[in-house]
Amino acid sequence: MENNIGQTMYNWATELFPINRSLTGKGVRETLSYFQNIIPELEIKSVPSGYKAFDWTVPEEWAIGDAYIENKEGEKIVDFKLNNLHVVGYSEPVNDWFSLEELNEHLYSLPEQPDTIPYVTSYYKKRWGFCLSENQRQKLESGDYHVVINSEFKDGVLNYGEVILPGKSNKEVFLSSYICHPSMANNELSGPVVTIALCDWLSKQKDREFTYRIVLIPETIGSIVYLSKNLDEMKQKVFAGFNITCIGDDRCYSYLPSRTENTISDIVALHVLKHTDPDFRRYSWLDRGSDERQYCAPGVDLPIATIMRSKYGEYPEYHTSDDNLDLISPDGLTGGFEALKKAITVLENNNFLRTTVNCEPQLGKRGLYPTISVKGSANEARKMMNFISYCDGNLSLLEIANKINEPVWDLYDLSEKLIKNDVIEVVK
Amino acid sequence: MENNIGQTMYNWATELFPINRSLTGKGVRETLSYFQNIIPELEIKSVPSGYKAFDWTVPEEWAIGDAYIENKEGEKIVDFKLNNLHVVGYSEPVNDWFSLEELNEHLYSLPEQPDTIPYVTSYYKKRWGFCLSENQRQKLESGDYHVVINSEFKDGVLNYGEVILPGKSNKEVFLSSYICHPSMANNELSGPVVTIALCDWLSKQKDREFTYRIVLIPETIGSIVYLSKNLDEMKQKVFAGFNITCIGDDRCYSYLPSRTENTISDIVALHVLKHTDPDFRRYSWLDRGSDERQYCAPGVDLPIATIMRSKYGEYPEYHTSDDNLDLISPDGLTGGFEALKKAITVLENNNFLRTTVNCEPQLGKRGLYPTISVKGSANEARKMMNFISYCDGNLSLLEIANKINEPVWDLYDLSEKLIKNDVIEVVK
Amino acid sequence: MENNIGQTMYNWATELFPINRSLTGKGVRETLSYFQNIIPELEIKSVPSGYKAFDWTVPEEWAIGDAYIENKEGEKIVDFKLNNLHVVGYSEPVNDWFSLEELNEHLYSLPEQPDTIPYVTSYYKKRWGFCLSENQRQKLESGDYHVVINSEFKDGVLNYGEVILPGKSNKEVFLSSYICHPSMANNELSGPVVTIALCDWLSKQKDREFTYRIVLIPETIGSIVYLSKNLDEMKQKVFAGFNITCIGDDRCYSYLPSRTENTISDIVALHVLKHTDPDFRRYSWLDRGSDERQYCAPGVDLPIATIMRSKYGEYPEYHTSDDNLDLISPDGLTGGFEALKKAITVLENNNFLRTTVNCEPQLGKRGLYPTISVKGSANEARKMMNFISYCDGNLSLLEIANKINEPVWDLYDLSEKLIKNDVIEVVK
Repeated sequence: MENNIGQTMYNWATELFPINRSLTGKGVRETLSYFQNIIPELEIKSVPSGYKAFDWTVPEEWAIGDAYIENKEGEKIVDFKLNNLHVVGYSEPVNDWFSLEELNEHLYSLPEQPDTIPYVTSYYKKRWGFCLSENQRQKLESGDYHVVINSEFKDGVLNYGEVILPGKSNKEVFLSSYICHPSMANNELSGPVVTIALCDWLSKQKDREFTYRIVLIPETIGSIVYLSKNLDEMKQKVFAGFNITCIGDDRCYSYLPSRTENTISDIVALHVLKHTDPDFRRYSWLDRGSDERQYCAPGVDLPIATIMRSKYGEYPEYHTSDDNLDLISPDGLTGGFEALKKAITVLENNNFLRTTVNCEPQLGKRGLYPTISVKGSANEARKMMNFISYCDGNLSLLEIANKINEPVWDLYDLSEKLIKNDVIEVVK
Repeated sequence: MENNIGQTMYNWATELFPINRSLTGKGVRETLSYFQNIIPELEIKSVPSGYKAFDWTVPEEWAIGDAYIENKEGEKIVDFKLNNLHVVGYSEPVNDWFSLEELNEHLYSLPEQPDTIPYVTSYYKKRWGFCLSENQRQKLESGDYHVVINSEFKDGVLNYGEVILPGKSNKEVFLSSYICHPSMANNELSGPVVTIALCDWLSKQKDREFTYRIVLIPETIGSIVYLSKNLDEMKQKVFAGFNITCIGDDRCYSYLPSRTENTISDIVALHVLKHTDPDFRRYSWLDRGSDERQYCAPGVDLPIATIMRSKYGEYPEYHTSDDNLDLISPDGLTGGFEALKKAITVLENNNFLRTTVNCEPQLGKRGLYPTISVKGSANEARKMMNFISYCDGNLSLLEIANKINEPVWDLYDLSEKLIKNDVIEVVK
Repeated sequence: MENNIGQTMYNWATELFPINRSLTGKGVRETLSYFQNIIPELEIKSVPSGYKAFDWTVPEEWAIGDAYIENKEGEKIVDFKLNNLHVVGYSEPVNDWFSLEELNEHLYSLPEQPDTIPYVTSYYKKRWGFCLSENQRQKLESGDYHVVINSEFKDGVLNYGEVILPGKSNKEVFLSSYICHPSMANNELSGPVVTIALCDWLSKQKDREFTYRIVLIPETIGSIVYLSKNLDEMKQKVFAGFNITCIGDDRCYSYLPSRTENTISDIVALHVLKHTDPDFRRYSWLDRGSDERQYCAPGVDLPIATIMRSKYGEYPEYHTSDDNLDLISPDGLTGGFEALKKAITVLENNNFLRTTVNCEPQLGKRGLYPTISVKGSANEARKMMNFISYCDGNLSLLEIANKINEPVWDLYDLSEKLIKNDVIEVVK
């Protein structure tokens, strides 16, 4: 991996951008294979079409070859080869002539964003359709059009990727992102590339405290399938986790809570974002829209929160051809990566601490406190004294950081120094 | 009962207005009989004068015939026949001549509301007095006046009315109003007429979930008497209830809490008022002044809250001759009736709900969710999805409504539809 | 003690002002003896130099005779006899000639307060130094200076004073102040003189409910020594207490919480200050700086809060020669004394109360309620009725006072009257 993690992630996204991902099929497999080259531990798993997962059934696998709309002159007016958003996801095959009036019922455009191709899918009901810009649509003259979609439905599989990085404890941190959207950048490629970068970083951490369960799945059906196979185990082991999506632009940071809004993941996310960017946007459970819908559903209730940059549904390019590689950036991806890395690091270091002595320790004799008392001399040691004053064995490092209003990452060295000087100790 | 419930209640109030009610006596009995004609289940009960109820003793019954102040010319200056507020409630008999100076010590008027007759009582100490407008009083010339009050105290009874409407459960909702004020409209006739309208509506509801205990009593002594006879049973059965008073004008809505401020009655009242009129006035326990003083007293602590229109003590006409039939209206009474009806309906429907499956249910296959995913298509189903996301078996319908910030009455149909589609179920 | 308690305390401070107190030594003993003359029950105790108290060791005793800086002409430029702040506390002996450059490394002044001598100590590291005003320092011409400090370190003792005033209960209220600062008035003499005035007042109270443990100690090392000898007993007995410091000027009132911020001492302090001066300054645990650092340390956690006038570190004269007898005043001391007296009185009277009857008591028959009901007549009895309405056996007098938003001291007579009338009773 390159030194510049932001550029590395951006390069991955650039290479993955053209692939036509969907819920199932070749695009998903190509994407997972690409990541397997980076993370050899990534296992590519599958369930067959028709597999029952709770209330849901895995749909048939969808394959698409050529697809276009041709006018009477034989000019391709709309061509899937130029942009894979042009075809409605899971379109059924068609090869026929239609009047403009008939065709219009199968066309999708955005009058308010006239240059932009929308992203449309119809996974669970058979239909066909094309997406195009409003400007392109306005140019269509009345007459007949030849419509071709060479698509195919067949019994196949739904694929997903899974990495387990074992730690000292079998308690797990869960990271999840999705790989089912065609050529779009913030939603979704930023999600899997940041997830894989985190996975790479974690795999290099010696002495990981916790086990990491990291998955790349198709959204909704994929998380439901994964839960249907792993829920019991996950309810026992997973104590924290993050859904990773929309984490590649540099306009803002965003937080979306778990359903109960008070898990350790929520507390960590809020701490990290508050000290990363005080103006981060705080959403509520009512604003949810990704796989936390499943991970935090009643009866599931895993402790999963979401740290994002610009949230899905809240930026104008969302689910259109404008959500492209210009929207995300190495800096934007790095900001998201660092926020999640900080969140994970907090979890790894979130010890309960207590002083080794009653009353304040005598820090002067350890060279940790000014030996002369002049007006204001105590101020430099104030952060350390505040920190120690909350080491009562009942508060974690994160809780202490919140009490004294410091970023927890500014306390790691201090905590270590005080442990080394036998002033505080970790509560076992 | 007429279709127009507001007009019906107003007509009742109009017919009851002239009756000279007091703590005891003929006026109370006439009022209870009037309501018994509407609700045959209403039982008229009594306790004798001298009956001990906790710290209190039921006073003698008071009867009053003629009462007036006459000048030397034999003109009746103040005449009880013209307005029954003219005599201080529970006045002892008198028939004598007094100088203006002597008389003045027995006169009550309101200098700041010079056209208005105040309402005054002296239930537990023997005295006599007349109430008149300040303007009327200013016209009195010095000289002697003949004062006549043909009143009588005798061992008798204190009457009250009680209806028990049984439901499937013997858990009870308690409704209480009072019938001890002479000719005044918002405080008090609005209270008993709305209570009787609710009683009539409830008696027609098939499959009532809960039992309803509904009483019409004289204020304070009546509620104390009632509690002294029923407290043990009520503490076991009553889980919610409302004191019904000052509910007939149309200037505002008001809420007065129970003593603990957090009973189910309080939560329901706040929900109903918030979604009925966001500008409703919120009072505290320190502002109390009606029978909640007894129902929520230490050691009693029944879960009774109060939903009102203009609160007693807070509107200028309170306890004067200006609190007349012009102050209340069919619309005002209807607003109060509907708010209480909604509150009761919430209690009847406040089930705990949970999803029948893990993860989100697949609503598309049930025709409950759009089958095509375009930007924004999920918005129409958002309220339903939010609702389902809180059906975890630990939250009641009311709590879910508060979580998703919807009036609970907008969720009844949705809840039923989802139950019918086997998506959610009631927790038994 | 004189009638005018403020003047009395001020006179004590005036007499104690010149004494050169430090952590140990003659000044501490003179100060304790002075107070022993007022409170004969005050025991003067000691621990030897080298005594181990938790993480700390009691230092040698420090004695100082003459100390000055002399120029070549034999003029005393800086003279300890003129102001005992001139010598750095615990300075080691010196008798030698130094160039101005060498001398400067041992001089302390405050460029931003050029007329003022700072207060500096070096208890745990041997050094010597002089403090002087910046103006005085600027006048020093280059050349050699004769420096003399006739000080001595020796095995001795650390002294402290202790009074135990037994009460009916062996539950204890703890009061602590310190006696280790030389000539300064708000910090510190206001603390011990108010503490001794409280001790005198308490010793005269018959029927004290609680036992009072009152100590005068050197700050930090003294409280640590005291805790090392008494912690187990104090954790069993002490349920409330106050650290008493900076309580003699009249600029404001201040509150500093215990570490948990929710002990009974905190609740009492907030109540007293809110009703004494609504503009009192509320500090947080992060602003602490006196012996609460020890009393509330993790593992110690005694329920100690602090009521002050101008808080240490927050007023410009703090730890300088300007913190003199002009800064404090009889009125300022009285205000602090009264606030603490009120706090203690709250603790003594903080009974749990409940009504003797169900429902509201009939107060009219006891002469406690107006017998006539006119508009507004209930208002005069409103405070009493509000009070009674919270006497449910689960709330203390202080909690009731907070519920009805009245100063608790305005409820003592009312409470007594209602107990005498058998309306309420103390819960045993």
